[in-house]
Amino acid sequence: MNAPNPDQSVRSPATGRKLGRRPGGEDTRGVVLDAARAEFAARGYEKASIRGIARAAGVDSALVHHYFGTKDQLFRAALDFPLDPRVVLEQILTGDREHVGERIARFALTLWQDPNIRDRLMATVRGAATNDQVAELLRGFMTKELISVAAERLDVPDPVLRAELVMSQLVGLAMARHVIGVQPLASTGIEELVALVGPTLQRYLTSPA
Amino acid sequence: MNAPNPDQSVRSPATGRKLGRRPGGEDTRGVVLDAARAEFAARGYEKASIRGIARAAGVDSALVHHYFGTKDQLFRAALDFPLDPRVVLEQILTGDREHVGERIARFALTLWQDPNIRDRLMATVRGAATNDQVAELLRGFMTKELISVAAERLDVPDPVLRAELVMSQLVGLAMARHVIGVQPLASTGIEELVALVGPTLQRYLTSPA
Repeated sequence: MNAPNPDQSVRSPATGRKLGRRPGGEDTRGVVLDAARAEFAARGYEKASIRGIARAAGVDSALVHHYFGTKDQLFRAALDFPLDPRVVLEQILTGDREHVGERIARFALTLWQDPNIRDRLMATVRGAATNDQVAELLRGFMTKELISVAAERLDVPDPVLRAELVMSQLVGLAMARHVIGVQPLASTGIEELVALVGPTLQRYLTSPA
Repeated sequence: MNAPNPDQSVRSPATGRKLGRRPGGEDTRGVVLDAARAEFAARGYEKASIRGIARAAGVDSALVHHYFGTKDQLFRAALDFPLDPRVVLEQILTGDREHVGERIARFALTLWQDPNIRDRLMATVRGAATNDQVAELLRGFMTKELISVAAERLDVPDPVLRAELVMSQLVGLAMARHVIGVQPLASTGIEELVALVGPTLQRYLTSPA
């Protein structure tokens, strides 16, 4: 439906809530976030648009941009994820090249220690393992916002593939520690794991073919 | 219920099928496998017992052993998984030490190419990601039948941890290629990946602390 919505009291197709073209406020934020979660889940990260989400929420695109910024920022707000991956990547990739693998391992392992973040990451991993649309969402988000951003900074052959191998080791480590829960891996200290896994990530990110 | 079952026409608590203490045959195999799946899912690999499965199926333990062998073999029969992990591990770990990482990477990547095996592995990964009992089952099976068997053969500090790190990279690679499906990783050829991932596994399995 591309036609503008003249009826101020229709229900949001995303949420079923009654809504109008209201000027803003706390409830509007909630309606937009509900619409965003529904749209991202239904269409995936690539195909979901701010315009479509605004339409589903019965508000102007400009209002969504005003509240949430870019599509990436809206997705993170919908996931309620407290970090900006571009800022984090910038911090990790800046600094001496010889220890970038260790920095990434330390950051990812520490991130999973935070119970709130672990819950959200677990929900995402579990969703991706069982729902093709969530897998599509995670794939699109990882590719656009993590892998391609990291790959731009790498000076190796096949930088996208290398960034994906890093991601594969981190996802596998999280699965083994927090989903499958094998011991002693699940209870091994972060610095011991950084010493073991850091060189793996370092080699993926910096070694020639 | 430890008492023997004198009633030849009760229903299996595992399957609801009417059963007696029959001498054998195709249907008995099916009843035992149903009972095994139910028992493994409910109690996990460690706590499930041949005796308990036999009781749930209404047959003698000796019959279960006769049909399926050990608990490990019964679990694999219940998963309908066509490989014996101990035989495979023995083959992979035998041979020159310098290329053991490559051999493991090649074996695991090739295994996932087989559509039938991929379906079963995906079902297991998906089950583990969403069901704590399946995760417990997978954890027990991996620990007893894969990790500890491999660790016995390793001459490194913390061999169990090292074997688990190998497992983590392989699980993550399978997730990235077959569940999340990031490109180009999902369509990269096996030998190219063996060259990239083999040295990771090699280091986990052979490098000093």
